[in-house]
Amino acid sequence: MIVVMKNGSSSVQIEHVVKLVREMGLKEHVIVGAERTVVACIGNDRLKDRGALETCDGVDKVVPILAPYKMASREVKKERSIIPLMNSRAGAVDPTIGGRKIGVIAGPCSVESKAQIIEIAHLMKEAGAVGLRGGAFKPRTSPYAFQGLAEEGLKHLAEAREQTGLAIVTEVMSIDQVQVCCDYADVLQIGARNMQNFNLLNKVGETRKPVLLKRGMSATLEEFLLAAEYIIARGNPNVILCERGIRTFEDYVRNTLPLAIVPELHRVSHLPVVVDPSHGTGKSYLVESMCKASVAAGADGLIVETHADPEHAMTDGAQSLTPQQFAEMMTGIRRIALAVDREA
Amino acid sequence: MIVVMKNGSSSVQIEHVVKLVREMGLKEHVIVGAERTVVACIGNDRLKDRGALETCDGVDKVVPILAPYKMASREVKKERSIIPLMNSRAGAVDPTIGGRKIGVIAGPCSVESKAQIIEIAHLMKEAGAVGLRGGAFKPRTSPYAFQGLAEEGLKHLAEAREQTGLAIVTEVMSIDQVQVCCDYADVLQIGARNMQNFNLLNKVGETRKPVLLKRGMSATLEEFLLAAEYIIARGNPNVILCERGIRTFEDYVRNTLPLAIVPELHRVSHLPVVVDPSHGTGKSYLVESMCKASVAAGADGLIVETHADPEHAMTDGAQSLTPQQFAEMMTGIRRIALAVDREA
Amino acid sequence: MIVVMKNGSSSVQIEHVVKLVREMGLKEHVIVGAERTVVACIGNDRLKDRGALETCDGVDKVVPILAPYKMASREVKKERSIIPLMNSRAGAVDPTIGGRKIGVIAGPCSVESKAQIIEIAHLMKEAGAVGLRGGAFKPRTSPYAFQGLAEEGLKHLAEAREQTGLAIVTEVMSIDQVQVCCDYADVLQIGARNMQNFNLLNKVGETRKPVLLKRGMSATLEEFLLAAEYIIARGNPNVILCERGIRTFEDYVRNTLPLAIVPELHRVSHLPVVVDPSHGTGKSYLVESMCKASVAAGADGLIVETHADPEHAMTDGAQSLTPQQFAEMMTGIRRIALAVDREA
Amino acid sequence: MIVVMKNGSSSVQIEHVVKLVREMGLKEHVIVGAERTVVACIGNDRLKDRGALETCDGVDKVVPILAPYKMASREVKKERSIIPLMNSRAGAVDPTIGGRKIGVIAGPCSVESKAQIIEIAHLMKEAGAVGLRGGAFKPRTSPYAFQGLAEEGLKHLAEAREQTGLAIVTEVMSIDQVQVCCDYADVLQIGARNMQNFNLLNKVGETRKPVLLKRGMSATLEEFLLAAEYIIARGNPNVILCERGIRTFEDYVRNTLPLAIVPELHRVSHLPVVVDPSHGTGKSYLVESMCKASVAAGADGLIVETHADPEHAMTDGAQSLTPQQFAEMMTGIRRIALAVDREA
Repeated sequence: MIVVMKNGSSSVQIEHVVKLVREMGLKEHVIVGAERTVVACIGNDRLKDRGALETCDGVDKVVPILAPYKMASREVKKERSIIPLMNSRAGAVDPTIGGRKIGVIAGPCSVESKAQIIEIAHLMKEAGAVGLRGGAFKPRTSPYAFQGLAEEGLKHLAEAREQTGLAIVTEVMSIDQVQVCCDYADVLQIGARNMQNFNLLNKVGETRKPVLLKRGMSATLEEFLLAAEYIIARGNPNVILCERGIRTFEDYVRNTLPLAIVPELHRVSHLPVVVDPSHGTGKSYLVESMCKASVAAGADGLIVETHADPEHAMTDGAQSLTPQQFAEMMTGIRRIALAVDREA
Repeated sequence: MIVVMKNGSSSVQIEHVVKLVREMGLKEHVIVGAERTVVACIGNDRLKDRGALETCDGVDKVVPILAPYKMASREVKKERSIIPLMNSRAGAVDPTIGGRKIGVIAGPCSVESKAQIIEIAHLMKEAGAVGLRGGAFKPRTSPYAFQGLAEEGLKHLAEAREQTGLAIVTEVMSIDQVQVCCDYADVLQIGARNMQNFNLLNKVGETRKPVLLKRGMSATLEEFLLAAEYIIARGNPNVILCERGIRTFEDYVRNTLPLAIVPELHRVSHLPVVVDPSHGTGKSYLVESMCKASVAAGADGLIVETHADPEHAMTDGAQSLTPQQFAEMMTGIRRIALAVDREA
Repeated sequence: MIVVMKNGSSSVQIEHVVKLVREMGLKEHVIVGAERTVVACIGNDRLKDRGALETCDGVDKVVPILAPYKMASREVKKERSIIPLMNSRAGAVDPTIGGRKIGVIAGPCSVESKAQIIEIAHLMKEAGAVGLRGGAFKPRTSPYAFQGLAEEGLKHLAEAREQTGLAIVTEVMSIDQVQVCCDYADVLQIGARNMQNFNLLNKVGETRKPVLLKRGMSATLEEFLLAAEYIIARGNPNVILCERGIRTFEDYVRNTLPLAIVPELHRVSHLPVVVDPSHGTGKSYLVESMCKASVAAGADGLIVETHADPEHAMTDGAQSLTPQQFAEMMTGIRRIALAVDREA
Repeated sequence: MIVVMKNGSSSVQIEHVVKLVREMGLKEHVIVGAERTVVACIGNDRLKDRGALETCDGVDKVVPILAPYKMASREVKKERSIIPLMNSRAGAVDPTIGGRKIGVIAGPCSVESKAQIIEIAHLMKEAGAVGLRGGAFKPRTSPYAFQGLAEEGLKHLAEAREQTGLAIVTEVMSIDQVQVCCDYADVLQIGARNMQNFNLLNKVGETRKPVLLKRGMSATLEEFLLAAEYIIARGNPNVILCERGIRTFEDYVRNTLPLAIVPELHRVSHLPVVVDPSHGTGKSYLVESMCKASVAAGADGLIVETHADPEHAMTDGAQSLTPQQFAEMMTGIRRIALAVDREA
């Protein structure tokens, strides 16, 4: 890190900073500029609290140099990671995220009944999806809203996998749900509201299931990769990053979908990147365009909400595609995928 | 809610909307305007998913009318709530938040050692604090950063209470920490990153400990009150709302502190409101001004980070006041409190 | 608009609202709901200040129903507008924005010299651009930064048009520059910082030159279309909307590029939409991906900063493509364009 | 500035950066760290485009060290500036902004008629205001909304000054209005939408009238002070900074009012700071609290919208105080002012 002294800082103040830098086990390098003195700190300062230096008299600011994440970074692993979605199936050619083929995960916001999930699973499979999403435990903004079918919903999802071969992706909201979700599902989803639920990150880090980690709605890129780092640091390298839109002042969408994060994440991290245009816009009529744009931007996969009867969906009807709209979208993105030398 | 049809919507489309509205158990009221038709829905639609209507052909948008929270609202309880911080102490005059007196909670970000917390507790008590804050379980952005002393830290906090009589406020990060925190602390803090950790909200809602609920860094006012509603709906009415700054584009602060939320929360809710200018700015040199501004804006309390030696604090040194700065701040806010007919 | 009364509002309060609504020349429709009374106002209320009603006792909020823009809206003109960029050239097949072909405008941030602009113009033409951008008047955040070559720069641009046939796009910053820009350029650009410089909008509205209107960095969609409405209302229908990124908390980019606005603008407006991924990211290594994503999202054109020697560019070097990178990008977007049934 | 090289950058790349740094007239200082090499640049680099360096191979990022503004900064002028509002009146004790006394400017959003402005002026004077605000040229989001009385409105304002002695504060929207506003008004207001209308900044910088410069709704602190720098650099040092709220995701207010900017501006600049809680909240019921909070935070003045009949105000009725509410607010802030050793 670089400690920038205030204009007119005294030599006593600079010496005090140097003393603290050395206490931290770093080596200092004092540069006297035309208007400011800066103290460059040499060494691995990832674990040092730069707040301590900011509080010193005569210090203007402290600028970090090293990215605070490591195992999620491209500096540690040059080639892109390819994550198998169903890591337990011997012999089978399992779907992956991160390779040449764009992996599409689709399905309803919530599992509402066995019939509903089985029906939609067959339609998604037919249209080209590799994974089936569906919530059994639902994080709802209101305590009075439908909270999901819990384990019963997981059983329906497992049954849908038996019939279709689709990988099951479901959200785990709490540490006490991790085991039951591992029992039935293939991929554990961490929702945006839980991106910094560190106990939950640690817990899924102790499993070997692939984790679909959604970006928090106001998380910086650095915070996003540090959340992935929590999981990897516990021993689970199978992290799939998912952009699902951020909170801004925009009011024609539920969230603003910032697609430049796709190439930027690929630049700084080896982890695959999936986009969720359903939550990323909140409007079904914007989903197809944003699916195309995501693939054009380099996304490794998509996660899309679908419902056979959106008008009667228990949750997220406004952003769900019908099976027919989904099939059309798949046709559209296959063309885009070819135009960027991939397939879908 | 009000369903706004598109310009040129057909009568078939309007009839279909009316049918869905009736299916929801609501009564419709169709108003044909100069350019648009709107369908006003009469009845309690708090639990209805308006997304279902948004997806219908011919619908432009659906506008909610009723606030989705109820027990946190002023419509249900007209007078302001006063929350005792130490509800178990018979005979004693316990500190409260929400009454005439501004309740100030102060202490270090993290409990670092017994000596540290005991020393600062005495200094805070002397300067006029009613509560002692200190983290035993720390939510850290990086997995490599100091994660807190856990139960040992809680024991130190309890010892500090024995010596000073200060109410102990500590953060609970996960459902499996709720019991141990209840055993030692007086007030359970839900951090900003966990404001929508619904399982945790339910769990603290099952206790009777006062809950200091921090606003998420991108939570709307409605989401904030719905998080409080989760706790109250489980049976615990002792919720203290805490504004701690939001994430915006501003870069001279760690967070932007939006103080207009103080009078707005008082307008729509009966719950007391506390402000955290330490996280709300991230800079110790801005804390005193923002403490004064918070009290002038009508805050019922403050929560302030302090450390005897900020340069060596394990966490949050940059935003911690020294004991002397804290005592000066208390003098300052006592004057402001009198100017708004309160005391501190 | 819909006036929502507070819970428990009195009949006197409701009658007072009704009186004000009638004074505004609107017809009221009072709907008594289970918990709230609402007053629906019938008539064209676009020009009414709803703030007046919000201030009445007993009123909770006022919800607008009609979009405040009209001539920019799809309700007034169903088919998409196609804007010729060089409307004065008889006989020639002039480039347009809004048709099947994606129109690409490229060139340096600033005109630095005649040699520079002539050289880059030929390279852009060769690679497939239809317009040449280049600033003669530069809006600079700092008063000490290079402010542009003014009329001399415009002459160089006109010379480049003579040699290449490219349409000249240049920014006009102030009402006293409109005439000279009209004299030399084909398309007048209104920069993001001037999107709500209403006097300037009126002034370019009095010309017949196509106007490339950049979205303000914190403008809502409604404000963006109202800025277009200013220009159209003065008699100039040739408005091209340009998304160039918005200001958010994201810090790995200069601006966040929200591509869902492309299909949303097409849904509500007939005007063509161009995207500027150079300002929209601020990083040259993100530009190609965002160009592709923009075309996939349905953009009618792109505006891209290029420089033969970005390391020595006087302005915006960090976001400029080299001519070679630009040519590669063009190859890339041609493939995407075909995949969405367009060409580039 | 500090050039941070990528991990693994080559010596050729570092040498190339050094060459460019020298070309800029700066001296380099290469520091080889454990994981990264950084090149510290010594010299005044305020006028250098760091984008040029960001584009070099092997460069990760470029971190500025010097603030880009100078004449607005506290480094150039240590003591706080006190700006007289009516600089032409010999002998009189003119009101000022920046001294011990909080200067309150009040009045309607728009001048609607002579009678209206004269009536409100007397009421404001009586309640303790030192300035009268009122718009003659109105920046309106919609082209169809009331645009102000222009010069006639200015005459009414001047008449109000004759009768009351209040300083006249009025907005100038365009370079061609500067002269006429100078003829009638005492203080020129630059609106938030024009904060980066650089031609207008230059023009008011050529006058000697005090300028009330409103912060743009998404301007950073640095951009705000650079806008002030434009005015000062042209020769007019009489700049009063005005915070009027920023655009965020918050929806219970028109804008989010970030009061920590008040002490921060005082820390880095010598210019006085005024707060506008009317635009800063958009809700009349929040204005009094935010006036108090502003004064407690250290504001040197307030600018408040008032109207004798807000229900019939032509503009901004929802955020206007009645004269009686204004008088009560003044009583309230006098008490707060005393509590921070000032007066109002």
